[in-house]
Amino acid sequence: MNIIDIINKKRLKGELTKDEINFFIDNLMNNNIMDYQVSSLLMAILLNGMSMEETINLTDAMIKSGEVIDLSFVKNPTIDKHSTGGVGDKVTLVLAPLLASLGFSVAKMSGRGLGHTGGTIDKLEAISGYQVEISKDDFINQVNNIGIAVISQTGNLAPADKKLYALRDVTGTVESIPLIAASIMSKKIASGSEFIILDVKVGNGALMKNLDDAKRLALTMKKIGEVYGKKVVCVLSNMEEPLGHAVGNSIEVNEAIDTLKGNGPKDLTDLVINMAAISLMNLENISYLDAFKAAYNNLKNGKAYQKLLDLVEAQHGDINKIDVSEKYFDIKSTYAGYIKSIDALKIGEFARRLGAGRLTKEDSIDPTVGVIVNKKVGDHVKMGDTLMRIYFNQVKAKFNPLELYSFFEIASEKVEKPKLILGIIK
Amino acid sequence: MNIIDIINKKRLKGELTKDEINFFIDNLMNNNIMDYQVSSLLMAILLNGMSMEETINLTDAMIKSGEVIDLSFVKNPTIDKHSTGGVGDKVTLVLAPLLASLGFSVAKMSGRGLGHTGGTIDKLEAISGYQVEISKDDFINQVNNIGIAVISQTGNLAPADKKLYALRDVTGTVESIPLIAASIMSKKIASGSEFIILDVKVGNGALMKNLDDAKRLALTMKKIGEVYGKKVVCVLSNMEEPLGHAVGNSIEVNEAIDTLKGNGPKDLTDLVINMAAISLMNLENISYLDAFKAAYNNLKNGKAYQKLLDLVEAQHGDINKIDVSEKYFDIKSTYAGYIKSIDALKIGEFARRLGAGRLTKEDSIDPTVGVIVNKKVGDHVKMGDTLMRIYFNQVKAKFNPLELYSFFEIASEKVEKPKLILGIIK
Repeated sequence: MNIIDIINKKRLKGELTKDEINFFIDNLMNNNIMDYQVSSLLMAILLNGMSMEETINLTDAMIKSGEVIDLSFVKNPTIDKHSTGGVGDKVTLVLAPLLASLGFSVAKMSGRGLGHTGGTIDKLEAISGYQVEISKDDFINQVNNIGIAVISQTGNLAPADKKLYALRDVTGTVESIPLIAASIMSKKIASGSEFIILDVKVGNGALMKNLDDAKRLALTMKKIGEVYGKKVVCVLSNMEEPLGHAVGNSIEVNEAIDTLKGNGPKDLTDLVINMAAISLMNLENISYLDAFKAAYNNLKNGKAYQKLLDLVEAQHGDINKIDVSEKYFDIKSTYAGYIKSIDALKIGEFARRLGAGRLTKEDSIDPTVGVIVNKKVGDHVKMGDTLMRIYFNQVKAKFNPLELYSFFEIASEKVEKPKLILGIIK
Repeated sequence: MNIIDIINKKRLKGELTKDEINFFIDNLMNNNIMDYQVSSLLMAILLNGMSMEETINLTDAMIKSGEVIDLSFVKNPTIDKHSTGGVGDKVTLVLAPLLASLGFSVAKMSGRGLGHTGGTIDKLEAISGYQVEISKDDFINQVNNIGIAVISQTGNLAPADKKLYALRDVTGTVESIPLIAASIMSKKIASGSEFIILDVKVGNGALMKNLDDAKRLALTMKKIGEVYGKKVVCVLSNMEEPLGHAVGNSIEVNEAIDTLKGNGPKDLTDLVINMAAISLMNLENISYLDAFKAAYNNLKNGKAYQKLLDLVEAQHGDINKIDVSEKYFDIKSTYAGYIKSIDALKIGEFARRLGAGRLTKEDSIDPTVGVIVNKKVGDHVKMGDTLMRIYFNQVKAKFNPLELYSFFEIASEKVEKPKLILGIIK
């Protein structure tokens, strides 16, 4: 068996055997095959596809490239959550405490972001003092004591994914459903939780640009999870406009806190309650309506917020110290009308240029900057209404105001509010 | 402009602009893009194709990556020849002297082979004393004096092709018509000749496995040549069985000499005469029949052979010293019947294992070894007839006789002789 034969087989649309996939991943880890051979195979996989069996075998090989976390010492049912990534996506910050308040154990390891804004871990670090690195024993103890811990990924989960992702990122081979599914699920399965809830974003600001692809990705991931005895549910959610209003790190934490207090933006609140409800239905034999009510109540009665306070206290953060830059300016509408579209991708890229996100792993993040998008698609605006508030810091953040106006499309006719939740796969 | 955007464009079946292709080749030469990005793009090109315009622009960028030989000081019309490569392919050794005897100037630079047997240069070195490296001035002078010079590639012809080919060879990205066409034509155009004759091999022992692909490749190369004002003709020839009888270096030179003396195998003789005839038709306004007769005559009257003698003498070789190993054994038929097939690819691989060819550029070649295939497809064999004579040298050449018998298929019913020339593109 050699890597050139494996590349040629996939190039000619062949189906790789389990042995061939194991050979590929083993030799990737041993550095016995060259990066240029890996990227050539990745492009062949992207263009010629992989069957479900190949995708499962690839995931399996990636899981076995590292360690698998043992959560059997955790008392309550364990749950993990993943989003395929979007602009203004602070769902974990709200959903994790809400799930903990509903009886789940949230033993979550998160990564740092290489996106428009930081990842969950970067956002939590916007809370002064919050410790993202704690020992595995303390992690398990904290989950058993308060039902929630959110820490930086420890150990060596699916290291093959790390190697592959680093290459995919620079060789145009990210957008492959089998490769995305194997990447996400290898890490989720290695993380050890029993329940997995997935948020697959669809639209201009997301990896999946249309609903069909998003569904295929969701079903692929669910199928992989089931092979490992995991209970997997998916929400397909709209990512044409940013989620909520805030796009940045500190300002997203603040928006999450508002939402946990029952005062969040409607779209974020709806998404989080729906995700909590389908998770709960899967745990207990109750109706969707009852599950929805239970989740809604815990946002209103302070129980979900209390879990965030418990989490932040346990990990030594100070919830009263979340710095937002004092420098800001507002972009005011020069038209009256209805918001027809808000370009999530452009706003995300702009937030990154302000310093809210990274371009390379070595970049540092400025938690204090970002964009508050005051309006949502379908909203009415008057001339002079604020469209966006931009928090900035360094002088390096130069912008052309005309470019900022191009983020919004304003129509004279009434525009319908877009649907947020495009599908649920239970 | 950046390489990831270019990869993504081709991944999504886009057409690359001239600027994008130049960016790719320029940065390949400057080492500003990584090998893993190049191989990912090559696989995307292989699977999603390239338009004629893209292929021409790629060829152009590759030509401009190095120098272009100026043959304007050569008196007679200059001609170059290329074969896409096959087993037992000694056509250049016969055709080049024949073309020189017909009034062309053959100013040929050849490469060393990375195939089953050596390239033309390796084969010429089987002639004791033959010098493959001579100065550019001596090269031009020799062509003007005797009408022929065959030397090792000097200078820096299409260095981008060299880089790309080294990667293609180990990343499963060889078998792409646009990449093959650009690779061959960039070197042919940089070599400076006015006429180009191409031998596109078709079949099991060749890069092109079927006639349709071979035609597409031939037409692509012809079109590229025309953009540069070259006169290009192509022969599509059968490569299911080895060409002629000899597969090796010294033994192929000996077979070429026999052919130049008018005593060669029928298939090799036919191919060479046809290739010479279509070249001549393109030079002079004569009928195919007259051109054919002229070529045939020069094999019979010794003029073509004299050109080989002139060539070898000018480059200090001794035509009487071509060593063939004294160790050999014969494989005898254990059946009576008709030869149904002879596996060119397996025989080529076997010759390489004997030491006739290289696996890596660093390998050296043993000119004295090889295989004489005594029979051709359609021939009748009796039990005990010799199927192959194997010249070997080193003890390292181990073989399983059963494996050797698998090269031949023998049928009880009569088998028709296969067609050698499958198409001519003038």
